[in-house]
Amino acid sequence: MNVNGTPTRTIWLADDGRSVQIIDQTRLPHAWEVITLRSMAEAARAIKDMWVRGAPLIGATAAYGMALAMAEDASDANLQAAHDHLYATRPTAVNLRWALQAMQDCLRPLPADQRAAAAYQRAAALCDEDVEINYAIGGHGLTLFKQRWTERKAAGAERLNVLTHCNAGWLATVDWGTALAPIYRFFDEGLPIHVWVDETRPRNQGASLTAWELNQHGVPHTVIPDNVGGHLMQHGMVDLCIVGTDRTTASGDVCNKIGTYLKALAAHDNGVPFYVALPSPTIDWTLDDGIKEIPIEERDATEVTQLTGRTASGQIETITITPAGSPAGNWGFDVTPARYVTALITEKGVCPATRDGLAGLFGV
Amino acid sequence: MNVNGTPTRTIWLADDGRSVQIIDQTRLPHAWEVITLRSMAEAARAIKDMWVRGAPLIGATAAYGMALAMAEDASDANLQAAHDHLYATRPTAVNLRWALQAMQDCLRPLPADQRAAAAYQRAAALCDEDVEINYAIGGHGLTLFKQRWTERKAAGAERLNVLTHCNAGWLATVDWGTALAPIYRFFDEGLPIHVWVDETRPRNQGASLTAWELNQHGVPHTVIPDNVGGHLMQHGMVDLCIVGTDRTTASGDVCNKIGTYLKALAAHDNGVPFYVALPSPTIDWTLDDGIKEIPIEERDATEVTQLTGRTASGQIETITITPAGSPAGNWGFDVTPARYVTALITEKGVCPATRDGLAGLFGV
Repeated sequence: MNVNGTPTRTIWLADDGRSVQIIDQTRLPHAWEVITLRSMAEAARAIKDMWVRGAPLIGATAAYGMALAMAEDASDANLQAAHDHLYATRPTAVNLRWALQAMQDCLRPLPADQRAAAAYQRAAALCDEDVEINYAIGGHGLTLFKQRWTERKAAGAERLNVLTHCNAGWLATVDWGTALAPIYRFFDEGLPIHVWVDETRPRNQGASLTAWELNQHGVPHTVIPDNVGGHLMQHGMVDLCIVGTDRTTASGDVCNKIGTYLKALAAHDNGVPFYVALPSPTIDWTLDDGIKEIPIEERDATEVTQLTGRTASGQIETITITPAGSPAGNWGFDVTPARYVTALITEKGVCPATRDGLAGLFGV
Repeated sequence: MNVNGTPTRTIWLADDGRSVQIIDQTRLPHAWEVITLRSMAEAARAIKDMWVRGAPLIGATAAYGMALAMAEDASDANLQAAHDHLYATRPTAVNLRWALQAMQDCLRPLPADQRAAAAYQRAAALCDEDVEINYAIGGHGLTLFKQRWTERKAAGAERLNVLTHCNAGWLATVDWGTALAPIYRFFDEGLPIHVWVDETRPRNQGASLTAWELNQHGVPHTVIPDNVGGHLMQHGMVDLCIVGTDRTTASGDVCNKIGTYLKALAAHDNGVPFYVALPSPTIDWTLDDGIKEIPIEERDATEVTQLTGRTASGQIETITITPAGSPAGNWGFDVTPARYVTALITEKGVCPATRDGLAGLFGV
């Protein structure tokens, strides 16, 4: 999508043909900074410290991390070490595991002297595949959006009101986004849309990233505290919800940013469709019961107690909002049971959030 | 309750016998500042700008606002003008209306020269009544807490885990609090308790006020983003929820701080008891359907886009967290339908959140 009018991806090969460039997403929306990753360790740090985030982009960065590793040392030992190092950066995202496995499958059979070139090629292909997948998700979502818009327009609505949580947009993928892909495609067709953007505490990916990218593209939106969505749904102000996912079980349970579950409950209580957009690498076919089986990442309490933003004088400052001596808890994700998900939107089409639904689409 | 070891109320008559003193709650938890209100207009500003907040304390402040008005000009015209001015400060809290009516009922029959003295007396009595009411709520809640603790202890729990939203504590009332009153009484009996404190965006009354007052009293607690409670309930980490209310309909619908509804949905989905503590002045007997009938206050968007806290160097600084150009929405309350409320805890006892339940307790 566009940044200041220029088509841009979230990760690309630098001009030296070896380093990889990313956007430091921890600086958004206050500053636009490109970071050059020159080693596997830097790629790992980019994932761990959330300069990049979003399941697909984490996978893409890990893939380029493997390429950087092979440029450093293409031995079997380093292939395994890089895999393990990158694997340990974030525990929840299944794409990370999937991308690392794809890289290993490609590289392990090759002689060491061919691995670096093959790794860069495979990482680039993986990025292109992500873009294709997201564009396809956008198309399938667009069909659902248009159906809903037809209903709502007939009932007198002036625009389609969509609620989203966290950032499953362009910035979470290589391009287009997952949950935001149908929004961009609907908007690009000149249809009227407005997005309620959950700010998504504690890291505020909604307020800082989703709002930023919708702003760049000109899509009308309003940032709301995470507490607000239920009220809006009770009053008919949300026509549909759409979110991404970090990991989806074979039975359709959806692990996504903490707080997603609460919005799904409210959507269910108010008859609002609740869609989850997911590229198939996000499906973890080995899992059944998401609540019991998915380990939930606990992150540093300072992400809750401290916030960063712009002061009136334009400086970037970090403040503490809690009393000294009050501890804070910080779970990164929750699991929305499949029964609260209206449908899953994948690159292969739309299906019910059930084992049969997913199996039917993917022939598993 | 205690502040730095000294028993303190949230509102009291100043030494001059005319002015009224309050705590500037917008400065907590970063600074402790007492403000002297010298006129009705200052009392109104204290309510409107949320130096004081919480339905019972708003009522108490409005009552003293009427007393200050009578000290200024005890005419019939000013009695009505003061009533109207104070009434307009906050649209949601029924206590405000109730307290102003109580003051008018007391003052209107009196000759003007007796009104000031009577007003101060009535306002003081209203404060004492609030303290008694909250202590009684604490007692009735304590019984429920002990029942739940007996169950949980038998199942191997080491402490009672309570989740609360917003601040319905000492700081929201004249003393004790409503939802926090049973917590303080349970803790004061030496029983083991831990409180999950929803930070309560956008104004963060949980992170800044509830955490602060629990801290002052030594009650173990953990601040969590509003997004987290559902996850904790799915994993058996919440034994009960308890919240306050700004307005409860005769049928038991509960209007409380935005986001309460989402927690009630999660409690219902996970079989966690969801209690609402309310002093009877909070009941609006004229209302039936809370969602349809209660107007929800929309507040300034800067409450969402800006946050205030302490910098590393100890200064109080305000930052903007959203991108320039992204609008924000700020609804102050939502309505939890009675069907999601396990029971109402009033000063007269505990009842189901139904018309019959409330009518049975209050003989209405």
